[in-house]
Amino acid sequence: MTARSPAENAQLALLIEVSGTPKPGNVDRERDLEGLRYDHFLAGAVGAREGLELAEGGVPVGSAFERAVAGMGSQGGGNTQFGSLLLLVPLVRAAREEVTRESVREVVEGTTVEDAAGFYCAFDHTDVRVGDPPEGMEPLDVRRGSDAVPAVEDRGLTLLEVMEASVPGDDVAREWLEGFERSFRVATDIGEVAGTPSERAAAAFLSALADRPDTLVATEHGEGVAREVRERAAELAERSALATDPDAVEGFAEDLVARGVNPGTTADLVCAGLFVALERGELVV
Amino acid sequence: MTARSPAENAQLALLIEVSGTPKPGNVDRERDLEGLRYDHFLAGAVGAREGLELAEGGVPVGSAFERAVAGMGSQGGGNTQFGSLLLLVPLVRAAREEVTRESVREVVEGTTVEDAAGFYCAFDHTDVRVGDPPEGMEPLDVRRGSDAVPAVEDRGLTLLEVMEASVPGDDVAREWLEGFERSFRVATDIGEVAGTPSERAAAAFLSALADRPDTLVATEHGEGVAREVRERAAELAERSALATDPDAVEGFAEDLVARGVNPGTTADLVCAGLFVALERGELVV
Repeated sequence: MTARSPAENAQLALLIEVSGTPKPGNVDRERDLEGLRYDHFLAGAVGAREGLELAEGGVPVGSAFERAVAGMGSQGGGNTQFGSLLLLVPLVRAAREEVTRESVREVVEGTTVEDAAGFYCAFDHTDVRVGDPPEGMEPLDVRRGSDAVPAVEDRGLTLLEVMEASVPGDDVAREWLEGFERSFRVATDIGEVAGTPSERAAAAFLSALADRPDTLVATEHGEGVAREVRERAAELAERSALATDPDAVEGFAEDLVARGVNPGTTADLVCAGLFVALERGELVV
Repeated sequence: MTARSPAENAQLALLIEVSGTPKPGNVDRERDLEGLRYDHFLAGAVGAREGLELAEGGVPVGSAFERAVAGMGSQGGGNTQFGSLLLLVPLVRAAREEVTRESVREVVEGTTVEDAAGFYCAFDHTDVRVGDPPEGMEPLDVRRGSDAVPAVEDRGLTLLEVMEASVPGDDVAREWLEGFERSFRVATDIGEVAGTPSERAAAAFLSALADRPDTLVATEHGEGVAREVRERAAELAERSALATDPDAVEGFAEDLVARGVNPGTTADLVCAGLFVALERGELVV
């Protein structure tokens, strides 16, 4: 479907995702955040490439993910694309043959305890904003990074089981459990909407934000703020405000940035959707 | 000096170059041209990576360049970064140890007839805007692509000798002959100016445009237009208009875009300078 390899399409998805504008609350090509700039995302995409190539080459998901995150983290902005890579790595691995909901489900169902260990080690390479673990799960707190690996091994948890423990509360993990349902839905949206790739990314972002409360916003600002953001996005998406009233979307974007509200999970889903759309030839660059 | 490999820094240089704005007359993150969009440059940088890695791995310059151009060309916008790659490939090769004017001079002086053949073959992969060849040089017209290789071999021309035949008239080729003098000067400028990487790229572009008439503009619009563009850039650069009168620079950018005047050679030099600055740690992302 495409002359590009899966790793190349994944890197391009990272770049198109961040270039989509306006993308309310997130860094985009016209909006830097405090200490986190557009060029950090460019460098994150550059650094992630090697890990994405490992996934394409058949290296286990956990190791490929750890390498992708380590490379992504070799820039000064901190965590730029951790969640996106957690979706892209199994998708790239599945795309070695053909990326479908079935093939990526097989990939995540085939993950092992070793993959879970790779996932935990990835937290050593960057600071990820996550909530406190549930009671009794402190030994498995991802923020412990590689220190938590013995606990993971003791309990014999696969990476899919680790993801299962993060749902509800993390819609990236939820994709792993639900066969990447939203990622593929976003891909279909991207294929159907008009505009340049960046414009499609912006439209897909607003639709996805309207679809469900962003779980990163909920973690950082509470469920109420996440619901409010979803409702405002839904109001704008329903009246196609990107086309009919762009100033309203810009105003929403400025407001979220001013309040430090950053719907990062939604950006991760859009990135996954862009990858699927590129692989399936629904998005052509 | 950097955690990134030379190929990674070269890819990042391609991305930062195109993200710098305003960059009068060229595609940047806020300005698409007719049929040539920002996302084409993102995809060009994605596709070029493999050839850049070959150069880093020690593959001969001509082959690595051909692979980089073929990958760059796997997007729908046409030629995005041919000239940039013609500078980056020898610089990346030199950076296997340390990128200096001496090391890159050694690389270009070491090129062979086979490298020249690779250079000609690269023209099969994309349309490059070049002028007519001098009289008697028709068999060596680069627009013939691989068809010209027998003539190159008959005359026993190395890639450096091919570049020599393009000077004057092509300031990318001139870098090969003059030890990448301007590329290294731009790198020093980038290290000294204030701002984000994208802002530094924009400042370096205006300074370089003020320095010498752009040879792509001269090829396409004549020497008079190239001189006029240089003079306007010089007037803006002298009064630091990017900081003191940004509207004047935006106006200049809009005017060049409207007239189809595209100072692409200057963008190539800035890209080379960004790479050197990243390698030497003068630009940190």
